[in-house]
Amino acid sequence: MTLTLYTFDWLPEFPRGFVRDLRVRWVLEETGQPYTVDTVPAYPKSPGHLALQPFGQVPIVVDGDLTLFESGAILMHLGEGTALLPASDRTKVTQWLFAALNTVEMSVMHWVTMVLATRFPDFFGPPPEDVVIEHARREMEAKLEGLQMALGGKAWLADKFTIADIAMVEVLRVVESEGALARFPQLVSYVDRARERQAFQRAMADHMQHWRAADSRKAATETGR
Amino acid sequence: MTLTLYTFDWLPEFPRGFVRDLRVRWVLEETGQPYTVDTVPAYPKSPGHLALQPFGQVPIVVDGDLTLFESGAILMHLGEGTALLPASDRTKVTQWLFAALNTVEMSVMHWVTMVLATRFPDFFGPPPEDVVIEHARREMEAKLEGLQMALGGKAWLADKFTIADIAMVEVLRVVESEGALARFPQLVSYVDRARERQAFQRAMADHMQHWRAADSRKAATETGR
Repeated sequence: MTLTLYTFDWLPEFPRGFVRDLRVRWVLEETGQPYTVDTVPAYPKSPGHLALQPFGQVPIVVDGDLTLFESGAILMHLGEGTALLPASDRTKVTQWLFAALNTVEMSVMHWVTMVLATRFPDFFGPPPEDVVIEHARREMEAKLEGLQMALGGKAWLADKFTIADIAMVEVLRVVESEGALARFPQLVSYVDRARERQAFQRAMADHMQHWRAADSRKAATETGR
Repeated sequence: MTLTLYTFDWLPEFPRGFVRDLRVRWVLEETGQPYTVDTVPAYPKSPGHLALQPFGQVPIVVDGDLTLFESGAILMHLGEGTALLPASDRTKVTQWLFAALNTVEMSVMHWVTMVLATRFPDFFGPPPEDVVIEHARREMEAKLEGLQMALGGKAWLADKFTIADIAMVEVLRVVESEGALARFPQLVSYVDRARERQAFQRAMADHMQHWRAADSRKAATETGR
């Protein structure tokens, strides 16, 4: 049975390119596993969606009898038995996966949520004062400094490209998109190196095509009213 | 060889009871694995600490040849082959572990960091305005509502008590300590149920004893000056 990946039916421009179904598309392209895409409404959340995912988030995958959410758990599940989660280096890859999703992403989201609130207060709430945002940026930069030191001259976090790199690069692309990665040249190179992978490019192309098709569906629905 | 758990040498009162070495003590008490505790300076960070842990965080464990950080990865490593990470339910336990550390903890830390800034601006930076903090609280509460719905009438997140419960309860205890869990009676019961476990009580007793001993060491050092 083909795996089904759930993402949102439509979203405005600003999160496109960063919605977390992209992480799952990327690992599926790396492993060459076919999949189909289905959707859940972004707003309001549907009861069917909340039954699959209690937090109303995406991605969700349905893989045979298994329904699974949390991008970290999905990366581990889909990486299992492949070179993206090698048995010989499993514990360290897991360490870097959690470093991406618990340490680095937590500090990145704390900061970027504040930054986005200055532009999209209807989505992210009233913006904090600049001095508060700057403190959050410095806390994030301390994490990025540690990451850059740990990466050193290596191409990838473990010996080879793994699911930990998919998670970490997806977090760092958020920093880059807000213009805050340039101070960390080795992290810029790391993101660029990952972005050159054909699997990333196919995943991103399909991700963006999904939103264009969603615009067309939305326009057709509104015309049909 | 006995496993070594690293935590900080000394910390002020306010984070005691919530430092992340507690998660590791808890899983070690559940599995009955002996361990010793060693320390790294909380401030300033030492080069030796940063060589083990690039973000300057704790916990770190040294288990034979393996040096491992990230509490999520440590929980998986120490749970491996035990009833806390059952092979038959591994994928779902992993899902809930990531739900604790990526979805729930991210929203909790975004809020609680703001709350702590109102009391400890030297540590957490200038406090945001109340309206900003309230928005972060509502975002967190939406996650807690989803979690409470998912838990339903179950005792634990998976069929039995697992490492996912250790991670989730440790996150929820932070919410409880700031008086924000009472709106979620099933989550209060869940935390209370976990706290009744002898392994938790031994872990917490040893954790608090560590800080009392650290106070004594600090006082002796200062007297000796």
